[in-house]
Amino acid sequence: MIDEQQGVIIAGFGHFGSTVGRFLRANGVKATILDNDSDRVDLLRKMGFKVFYGDATRVDLLESAGAGRARLLISAIDDPERNMELADVVKKHFPQLKIFMRAKNRYDAYELIDKGLSHIYRESLHSSVYLGVDVLHELGHRKYTATRKAMDFIRYDQEALEKLSRERHEKDRYILSVKNEIELQERLLSEDQLFADLRSDTAWDGERRKED
Amino acid sequence: MIDEQQGVIIAGFGHFGSTVGRFLRANGVKATILDNDSDRVDLLRKMGFKVFYGDATRVDLLESAGAGRARLLISAIDDPERNMELADVVKKHFPQLKIFMRAKNRYDAYELIDKGLSHIYRESLHSSVYLGVDVLHELGHRKYTATRKAMDFIRYDQEALEKLSRERHEKDRYILSVKNEIELQERLLSEDQLFADLRSDTAWDGERRKED
Repeated sequence: MIDEQQGVIIAGFGHFGSTVGRFLRANGVKATILDNDSDRVDLLRKMGFKVFYGDATRVDLLESAGAGRARLLISAIDDPERNMELADVVKKHFPQLKIFMRAKNRYDAYELIDKGLSHIYRESLHSSVYLGVDVLHELGHRKYTATRKAMDFIRYDQEALEKLSRERHEKDRYILSVKNEIELQERLLSEDQLFADLRSDTAWDGERRKED
Repeated sequence: MIDEQQGVIIAGFGHFGSTVGRFLRANGVKATILDNDSDRVDLLRKMGFKVFYGDATRVDLLESAGAGRARLLISAIDDPERNMELADVVKKHFPQLKIFMRAKNRYDAYELIDKGLSHIYRESLHSSVYLGVDVLHELGHRKYTATRKAMDFIRYDQEALEKLSRERHEKDRYILSVKNEIELQERLLSEDQLFADLRSDTAWDGERRKED
């Protein structure tokens, strides 16, 4: 059994990182924390957390925090650029560490996929979909069914993200204009329609029939 | 059966709002959209959405978009201050509209609770907890159990939010210093411990035995 306290590092303990840390702690996993807010660091130490103060992208700080023997690192720095830098540093110096990555949005996520990362969490994806679940419930849909559809939608959206990320290399990857964003929305919406069609019972039966 | 196309308004179609809109559309609900990005508005119209271009906090625009007879409004503007303004305008001019509110973080959420709003979605809450689910899974926990714990944690965190929001009025509400944030983290972490204890089987059995 791995020493979970040593096994998990959280870099950045703002709103995002602290929620992850609290959820893990409520489930018996005490992560080692890296944070550059000195007041917060003092408090967290008093509360029994193992905390290292400073810039999480510094190799020596990561080393002291046990990055060389840890199992996974949660990269949750508030500033997307510094968070991205951390991913680079960790991949280079601690290649054995599995990285769980906070991403600002879809474009951040594309860059992270380009870097070869796979555990990517766009920070507002789940909340926006769960707002949608409550709206469907308000409109009379069953909560259970809407929740299942939310999980399917998120899984599907993550697959679409990887597909679209690969495709964008076929075009000029340095142009990220409003036009591109619009094309993307267009693509996503058409794909969603496909998704909705595939989910409908009729389409599903058609699929089954073909297989038979 | 309500005409769902008329019944739902989404204000702001950036990353957050467009994900809600796509999820709803994939489930057969076509919302009316308010957005101030003219290129995006053109595209959305082409794709068959009912879209109004302009500042969503303008009463006349809301009126044209059907706010007077709609059922619910999703307030998803990227700028937290303008999103907050929209809540005020809607509460004043369209009191029958149920508001589903995007919030930046815990402090935004407190302000929204003060305004009497109840459907509040902190934009990174769900994603950070679901990152935690995958971490627990990576450490050997069952995915199903971790997901249930995530749902419990989010429900519990929302209840704690309302409780802490009321309590903060007992102190000077205008001081939002680092010290306060630290006290808050301290409170949250102790409450989480309580939550973890309550969930553990032993504590639960103890509770049961007392009842017997």
